[in-house]
Amino acid sequence: MPKLIRMQRLRNDKRPAQRPVMMAIAGDSAAGKTTLTAGLVKALGPERVTALCVDDYHRYDREERKNLPFTALHPDCNYVEIMEQHLQLLATGQPILKPVYDHNTGSLTRPELVEPRDFVIVEGLLPLHTPLSQACFDIRIYLDPPEDIRRGWKLDRDTRKRGYRPEQVLAELERREPESEKFIRPQRAFADLVVRFKPVEGRDDPPTTPLSAELLLRPTIRHPDLTTILAGSERRAIHLTLRRDEDSRPVDALHIHGYAPPEESRVVQKAIWSRLGVDAGDPPETLGDLGAGQRSEPLAITQLLLLYHLLDVSRG
Amino acid sequence: MPKLIRMQRLRNDKRPAQRPVMMAIAGDSAAGKTTLTAGLVKALGPERVTALCVDDYHRYDREERKNLPFTALHPDCNYVEIMEQHLQLLATGQPILKPVYDHNTGSLTRPELVEPRDFVIVEGLLPLHTPLSQACFDIRIYLDPPEDIRRGWKLDRDTRKRGYRPEQVLAELERREPESEKFIRPQRAFADLVVRFKPVEGRDDPPTTPLSAELLLRPTIRHPDLTTILAGSERRAIHLTLRRDEDSRPVDALHIHGYAPPEESRVVQKAIWSRLGVDAGDPPETLGDLGAGQRSEPLAITQLLLLYHLLDVSRG
Repeated sequence: MPKLIRMQRLRNDKRPAQRPVMMAIAGDSAAGKTTLTAGLVKALGPERVTALCVDDYHRYDREERKNLPFTALHPDCNYVEIMEQHLQLLATGQPILKPVYDHNTGSLTRPELVEPRDFVIVEGLLPLHTPLSQACFDIRIYLDPPEDIRRGWKLDRDTRKRGYRPEQVLAELERREPESEKFIRPQRAFADLVVRFKPVEGRDDPPTTPLSAELLLRPTIRHPDLTTILAGSERRAIHLTLRRDEDSRPVDALHIHGYAPPEESRVVQKAIWSRLGVDAGDPPETLGDLGAGQRSEPLAITQLLLLYHLLDVSRG
Repeated sequence: MPKLIRMQRLRNDKRPAQRPVMMAIAGDSAAGKTTLTAGLVKALGPERVTALCVDDYHRYDREERKNLPFTALHPDCNYVEIMEQHLQLLATGQPILKPVYDHNTGSLTRPELVEPRDFVIVEGLLPLHTPLSQACFDIRIYLDPPEDIRRGWKLDRDTRKRGYRPEQVLAELERREPESEKFIRPQRAFADLVVRFKPVEGRDDPPTTPLSAELLLRPTIRHPDLTTILAGSERRAIHLTLRRDEDSRPVDALHIHGYAPPEESRVVQKAIWSRLGVDAGDPPETLGDLGAGQRSEPLAITQLLLLYHLLDVSRG
């Protein structure tokens, strides 16, 4: 064994650890993880980002799950220990041979080589499930839409893209609810940022109005000083409220209003972008992309804040 | 990152590293690796041994290899870095999610969880290919039959068990020869024990005579004192010769004669077995099993020596 330890040191000397910036995006099925991630990948450039989904760590395929007393959400249905191991390897700059779950066929297939680039974005149902997995990330996000909105998104996606009938999706949502409560939603407590897209209550906006976003900025990481950045902005587009978190600790709540005129949101985006110090131009046009030609300014501002954190960590 | 390192320590405290004894059995295709391994697994008890084959780390499936300028023997045809990583994980007592190559279909399939038991025996084409992989093992074996014998074994196995026609096997042997020379046979230099099954030259034994074995015992590990153990044995069954290795370093060559009467071989086996101090009875009857009801005393003695080393390392 001493020889192995010497060899490992040798290897580390040859390949100085290029430790990537690690971001987790946790949330329930159809909470918007993939949409949020896609905008970050486009903005940073795919050649600088490794994006992966830890739902690939399923222990059983769809056929085997039919005879099991739990759903794919249950930790026992996943190789959690291997997920932890692979997150540690990526966090220390090493490649992994990642399992692959095929959502179309429901089967586990040939694994694929994943090498960490400058930024590693890990989305999925359970990336923050254990203390060790939480410790692998520099920035932890939890996507927390109201349940009725998430169910609408899941119904839409699973019928259009995954070939299910509506009644099948609704039955699955029911079946999963106890495990969502027990395993998915508790991860919210371990996030540095909780993101909630929802309509603003008590307003009578037209149905085409983009959803607003409420971001809980927990002081577990160093957020940008938004009181300065937002000093000159319209409170109609965005405002910050100091309040107490569920555990009564101080927290900032950032409200980004979907009903604000896009021009006003763009002013805020420029202010955050210039604070990033990347270049003198405008923020990437790809931010806020909802797919199908639609754009959301609250999504764009959310992604800009996450970009801020990714770049902030990479600069040390 | 400091948090991750703290967490990893915590994990290590919770699960004190149960470091398994690691043995590599390297050699070319059909060199006898699986037969040698099977006897060790049976003798130790399958519940105490994890046996795996690193040929599962193929980067390409059979179909993809058809368009490539090298064979499955080439390191570029294998995830060598992932093999090294998995060997390090096993050597430090951690589980792996191992890729799986299906020899029947030639395809890469769903990976499987492998947890290290007390003894980990790793066989394959390239387990000793890199310095880091070599450092993962406590005991390194290289199987080195004369080429004509190995070709006969491969022809027999691939036509009977893998559905190839003889001319296909012979063509494949030709195609592989340059890579065998360049990548497989150099591993011989990094073995603690080189095992060569072959007939004894210059004798006119009947064709049913079991092959003899010649074992090179390199002083890179602590071999049992055979001069004592063999003191009372018949030289007809087994004898030890002090000589110089290819690199002119001192080495013991152990000759185990297939033509010796089985009773005499059994005396030697008992002597080694009692030196192991496992129990007072006879050596396991499963040693020496060639399959199809055949038994080889030289194979049994070889396996007993490997058992000696496995148990010697496990006792520290």
